[in-house]
Amino acid sequence: MLPLKGIIITDLTHHLPGPFSTSLLADMGAEIIKIERPPKGDFLRLMPKYYSAVNRNKKSISLNLKDEKAREILSRLIKISDVLVESFRPDVAKSLGFDYEAVKKIKKDIVYCSLTGFGQDGPYKDDPGHEINYLSTSGVLSISGDPKGPPEDWGGIQISDLCGAMYAALSILAALRNRDKTGKSAYLDVSITDCLLAWLGPKLGEYYERKRPSKDMLLRRGAYGVFETRDGKYLAVGCIEDIFWKNLCRILNINEIAEKKEYATTADRIKRADELKALLKKYFLNKTRSEWLDIFKNEDVPLTSVNSLDELEEDPHIKHRGLINKMDDFNLINFPVKFNGERETRLKLPGKVGKDNKEILIKLGYTNAEIEDFLQS
Amino acid sequence: MLPLKGIIITDLTHHLPGPFSTSLLADMGAEIIKIERPPKGDFLRLMPKYYSAVNRNKKSISLNLKDEKAREILSRLIKISDVLVESFRPDVAKSLGFDYEAVKKIKKDIVYCSLTGFGQDGPYKDDPGHEINYLSTSGVLSISGDPKGPPEDWGGIQISDLCGAMYAALSILAALRNRDKTGKSAYLDVSITDCLLAWLGPKLGEYYERKRPSKDMLLRRGAYGVFETRDGKYLAVGCIEDIFWKNLCRILNINEIAEKKEYATTADRIKRADELKALLKKYFLNKTRSEWLDIFKNEDVPLTSVNSLDELEEDPHIKHRGLINKMDDFNLINFPVKFNGERETRLKLPGKVGKDNKEILIKLGYTNAEIEDFLQS
Repeated sequence: MLPLKGIIITDLTHHLPGPFSTSLLADMGAEIIKIERPPKGDFLRLMPKYYSAVNRNKKSISLNLKDEKAREILSRLIKISDVLVESFRPDVAKSLGFDYEAVKKIKKDIVYCSLTGFGQDGPYKDDPGHEINYLSTSGVLSISGDPKGPPEDWGGIQISDLCGAMYAALSILAALRNRDKTGKSAYLDVSITDCLLAWLGPKLGEYYERKRPSKDMLLRRGAYGVFETRDGKYLAVGCIEDIFWKNLCRILNINEIAEKKEYATTADRIKRADELKALLKKYFLNKTRSEWLDIFKNEDVPLTSVNSLDELEEDPHIKHRGLINKMDDFNLINFPVKFNGERETRLKLPGKVGKDNKEILIKLGYTNAEIEDFLQS
Repeated sequence: MLPLKGIIITDLTHHLPGPFSTSLLADMGAEIIKIERPPKGDFLRLMPKYYSAVNRNKKSISLNLKDEKAREILSRLIKISDVLVESFRPDVAKSLGFDYEAVKKIKKDIVYCSLTGFGQDGPYKDDPGHEINYLSTSGVLSISGDPKGPPEDWGGIQISDLCGAMYAALSILAALRNRDKTGKSAYLDVSITDCLLAWLGPKLGEYYERKRPSKDMLLRRGAYGVFETRDGKYLAVGCIEDIFWKNLCRILNINEIAEKKEYATTADRIKRADELKALLKKYFLNKTRSEWLDIFKNEDVPLTSVNSLDELEEDPHIKHRGLINKMDDFNLINFPVKFNGERETRLKLPGKVGKDNKEILIKLGYTNAEIEDFLQS
C-alpha cells in the first residue's frame, strides 16, 4: 500500500534533515522531485551509501537556480506540485525568488515547508548550527551524557535532524488534509530547536513533578543498564518493575538478593542503583552473550542483545520483520511501519544528479526541441 | 489553524508512546477520546505534570472494558471514530474483542494503529521491553554513550518512545489520506524497534561508506563538543567546517593555532579531535558563559548555551518563538511547528479520569436515563 500516491513534492533540500523528511513521504508513495545544482548536486553525494539512505525513491532534476531557464522550469514544477520543501537559511528562498509569497502566486494552494535549525524568526534565526547546538539550546543536551560527567551529545543517532524531519513530514500531511478540505495553502515554519523542545516535554513534566534537577537522577534507574558478558559483548537489562526484578534474580539464581528488604521496591532499587549495577555486573561476566540470550529466551524479563551495526542482519527478529533491504554491497532500511501486514520493498537507489531531467521536462509539457536545448546547455 | 479538525480518535493507550503520538494529533486539532479504566486510569496520572505533557487537549471517558455496558459504549464510539490507537501487547486487543478484524466490522473504514515495542509478529513480539531494550536490539545503543566506554543510553530524552510515537502519528495521517481517496480501512503495525532501526538508517549509511565501525569514530569530530566556562556552566561548539573553525580561532584570539598546518582541514581536525578539545578547553575556562555568549553574538560561529531545564524560559530565542505555555505552577511546551506564522495556544489541561463521560455519552446518542444509569454504576 502506498497511501501517499499522487502527491507531488518539489524538494529543494540537501544534506540530512530535509531529505530524511521527504524520504519518509517518498517511502509512502509521494513523488519527490529533488532539485540539485549541477554538476555536483547535494553535498551528501560524496558518500553515496549515506546519500541513498535518505534519498532512495526520489527523482532528481539538475537546475541552477541562478539561470533564467532553470527558474522557469522550477515555476512549472511548482505549478503541478502539492508541496514545496526548502531548508535554506531564512531569506535565501526570497533572494532566489521562491519564498512562500512568490510560490503562492504560482500555485495558490501550495503547502510550503521551511525546515531550519532555529526557525524563521527570533534572535538566533540566522545563526549557524549543528546537532550539538540545537540540542544545547533546547535543553536536551543538559540531561544527556554520562550522569557523572558534563553534558555530552552521546545519543548515537542524529536526534536533532531526525526530530525536525519527523515534525516536518507530519505537519506537511496535516496541512495537506486542511488544503483538501478548505482549498487553502499553508506555510510551515519548522525549527529543529523548537521540535527538540517539544520532545523534551515529557522529561520536563517528569522534572517538574519530581523536582529532581540533575541528569544523574533523571537517568539513573535500578537494575537497568548495560552489562558486559564474558565474550566482551553486551546485554541491555531493563528490570525496573518488581516482577522483572524478581524474574531476573530467579534466573540468575540469586533469590537471596531478590528477597533483601533494601531492594524491595522500584524506589529502593533506584536509590541503590549504583550498588545494584556493581552487583549484577559480576554475574553477567560469567557467561557469553549468546549463552545468556538462550537462558533468558521466553522468560518474562526485558533483557536484549546490544546489537552492533554488523550484527543487525543476523538478529532473528529484525530478519523476521523484513526491515533490511539488501542492495549490491550495502543495506537500506525499509520504511518501518507495516501497512496492512505488508512491507513495501520498492526502495529505488538514487541515480546521478539530473537523472530524471528528461522525464520531468516531458511531464512539465516542454517540447522535444526545448528539452534537447535544455539538456545540451 | 487546526488542520486536523473533525478527525475523531479512540485512544486506548497509556503511559508514554501512545499518548505522545495522539497528543501530536490533538495539538493539531483532532478530537482524542481517551479510554481509561476506572477508578485510577492511566498509570502516568501518578505524575500529573508529566501526564499533562502528553495528554493535554484530550477528552477522557472511564470504561472498564470487562463490563458489557462499557464495551457497548466503546463500540458506539468506534462507530463515529476515524482512528483507533492501541498499545497493548499483541493479542490483548483480541482478547478484549477489539482487534482490527472486530473493529472493522463496527467501522468499515477505520484506521487502526497498534503501537508496540517489537511489533505484531516475529520472535520478540511478546517480550517485555523498555527504552534501553529497543535501543539495544535496533543497534542504536551500540553507537551511544561515552566513545571511550561501553554502550550506554545517554541520549537524555526518551528516544525510543518518541520515535515510535512520531511514526505512528505520521502513518495514521497517511492512512487517513488513503481512506479519504479509496474508502479503505488500514491496519498499522508500528514497532518501536523497527522505527529506531529506520532512524539508524543514515548512520548505517555513513558506516557502510566510511568503514569506521567504532562508536568512537562515529561520534568524534574536530572542534566540536561541550566546553565548560569559568562559572561552571557549559557551551556547545560545533565548528566542523573550515570557516567556522577559522572564525572561532579569530574570536578566541588564537590565530596562530588556526594557521597550523596540522589543523588545516576538517579531516585533520577530526584526526586530532582529542588534542584540539584539550587545547580549546583552557580558553573557554577563562570567561563566564554569558561573557562568551556576548562575545560570540552575531558572529558566524555555531556556539550556543547549554541551557538547563530551569534556564529554558529565559532563553531569548525560546521566549521569542512562543514555545512555552505557562500553566499555574509548571510549563507545557507548545506544538513546535508554526502554521501560517501562528502558534495555537489552546493547550487544555487534562481533567480527572472520566471527566468527559457525560459529554461523550450524549454525543453517542444515549438517552438521559441511560446516561444517569451509567454514571451511577
